[in-house]
Amino acid sequence: MPTLLLDKEKCLRNMENMAGKASANQLSLRPHCKTHQSAEIGNWFRNFGVKAITVSSFRMARYFAEAGWKDILVAFPFFPSEMEELIGLSEKCRLSILVDSPATLPFLHHIPHRVDFYIDIDTGYARTGVRTENPELIEQIIVKASVNPRLEFRGFYCHAGHSYKAGSRKERNQIHQKAISDLEKLKKQFGQHAPLLLYGDTPNCSMQEDFGEIDEITPGNFVFYDLVQVALGACSMEEIAVAMECPVAGRYPAGDRIVIHGGAVHFSKESLLQDGVPVYGRLVQQREEGWSKGSRNLYLRRISQEHGVLEQCGDLVRSTNIGEKLLFLPVHSCLTANLMREYLSLDGERITTLNA
Amino acid sequence: MPTLLLDKEKCLRNMENMAGKASANQLSLRPHCKTHQSAEIGNWFRNFGVKAITVSSFRMARYFAEAGWKDILVAFPFFPSEMEELIGLSEKCRLSILVDSPATLPFLHHIPHRVDFYIDIDTGYARTGVRTENPELIEQIIVKASVNPRLEFRGFYCHAGHSYKAGSRKERNQIHQKAISDLEKLKKQFGQHAPLLLYGDTPNCSMQEDFGEIDEITPGNFVFYDLVQVALGACSMEEIAVAMECPVAGRYPAGDRIVIHGGAVHFSKESLLQDGVPVYGRLVQQREEGWSKGSRNLYLRRISQEHGVLEQCGDLVRSTNIGEKLLFLPVHSCLTANLMREYLSLDGERITTLNA
Repeated sequence: MPTLLLDKEKCLRNMENMAGKASANQLSLRPHCKTHQSAEIGNWFRNFGVKAITVSSFRMARYFAEAGWKDILVAFPFFPSEMEELIGLSEKCRLSILVDSPATLPFLHHIPHRVDFYIDIDTGYARTGVRTENPELIEQIIVKASVNPRLEFRGFYCHAGHSYKAGSRKERNQIHQKAISDLEKLKKQFGQHAPLLLYGDTPNCSMQEDFGEIDEITPGNFVFYDLVQVALGACSMEEIAVAMECPVAGRYPAGDRIVIHGGAVHFSKESLLQDGVPVYGRLVQQREEGWSKGSRNLYLRRISQEHGVLEQCGDLVRSTNIGEKLLFLPVHSCLTANLMREYLSLDGERITTLNA
Repeated sequence: MPTLLLDKEKCLRNMENMAGKASANQLSLRPHCKTHQSAEIGNWFRNFGVKAITVSSFRMARYFAEAGWKDILVAFPFFPSEMEELIGLSEKCRLSILVDSPATLPFLHHIPHRVDFYIDIDTGYARTGVRTENPELIEQIIVKASVNPRLEFRGFYCHAGHSYKAGSRKERNQIHQKAISDLEKLKKQFGQHAPLLLYGDTPNCSMQEDFGEIDEITPGNFVFYDLVQVALGACSMEEIAVAMECPVAGRYPAGDRIVIHGGAVHFSKESLLQDGVPVYGRLVQQREEGWSKGSRNLYLRRISQEHGVLEQCGDLVRSTNIGEKLLFLPVHSCLTANLMREYLSLDGERITTLNA
């Protein structure tokens, strides 16, 4: 079976770097837990002074609340079928939710415990959120919510996910600057509520230096990083803290390829263009302690449900044996970790997740 | 939470149709269980005379053996780290494995119970298997295996997965005919061993009429079908037996879009080109009993970890409420079912899987 290896040292270093950057910029760090989905890994953040977290679903919120977290933001617009979960959680911890429509507020009318909310702001990603061009809608939400004594407006949240699609560093910088400046305008405009500003995905939190009046950053992927983040320039190959260990199932010298046990149900189907062709993982070199980048650029170029195909292998086809284990960096560590559901540390410790 | 709905009637009809086609062509049906991964759904096949199954991993083989299956083919080249599983399973059932290299055979030297094997044949897919152009290698495997009294050569297996990538029906027909003719040649050439021929993915088993001297077919996806199969012409939209039920999290009239709770960790990132643009699911119309195709072609055009974005919604944005549930046909039902890990039948019965 394929195994997801975790280099704890690299992971701790990634946490430390992000916590250091936050602190140097007077930002709180409220890391997003959707990447690791693990109570144990979440706990490592406590060493760096982290007291609040971000999650992407109520199910994940409950899991981390049970692991002892007392301040949790569910960074997904609230919808009414989650009401029972919301009530249960708001009793146990300081729960924050996202709202981006006045239509959500009537559902929250009879909540028995205090719930904080942030207004989700769309600065150009065009997924969820109120567009910054629409302060009237923001005003409506705040006014309508104010009649509910248990619902507290805390500020604005923005995920500028379109920075992942930016074609250049210049374009990415513009996306970041617009997000910051839009949020700052809102902070001023709704100043009587002293709103907090929550912002920041992994690429921007890793690469940008100016966070203006932002109060909290909420990146998630940086705990592990991955090939997408390397391609964006957010990290180096050496900072990637997880690797898939996959047994060789077949070697085909005539086809210049190796087939591993490790497919779409292990890596996910997330791909990355490498020289114009989609790839699903990058071969790295096994070391006594973990792995190193290795000298050759070899990629999984095809993936089916359980198979991965390493092409253009050259000498490796002849020097590799059936059953031998090869290591691969994942394209998108969040989706790979979600599928694998547990980690094996380099010390041989099994680390479970929400789905284990 | 998103829920994977299963229309049992459609599923049973798909099973019945495939069993009928097999029987009309004097073929045994050894369905692949990697799509549904469910003991209960597997059991439904018994109504259609099915006595043997195909799986894609030893873990899946053990699960179905525990569910009472006595004749199981693990359709993945055997590699030595699976040895313990192989020994355990071969004690409990008639176990068949795939071999495509003489290098695998020494690992099987001391097996305590009988194991059948098929030689995996590559007729052009270029994933695993011995190329048909290499009968010397096949001969080597058979001769080398013959010294092992517990290892029995049973025949040839071929998965012509490149038919999924065929650009036209003509090309797909050629791929099918080459596979059949290659396998028939091997049956003749190695006639003294009376080899069985195992072949057949869902598109070919659904669309082809001539299976030559094939003995058993091993399709899997047809139990549910999906949008990929519709695009290939293997089924109609009405035959798709699973749909994702996802709550609406946000509606954005100015952006002409609806955002659902349902993302890459539910649907998978498998996409399909629709008018040149990748899509991740197709909206269908809820009915009292299940769903119908509906009159409009609306697709999930963007997907992130937990969010799905339905674009170009027109009137639907205004007529849809937050929290309302929408239904979507999946692009690749195998990957969606693997992520969802359980089904909800239209009668409200929960059906579990290997990963539940």
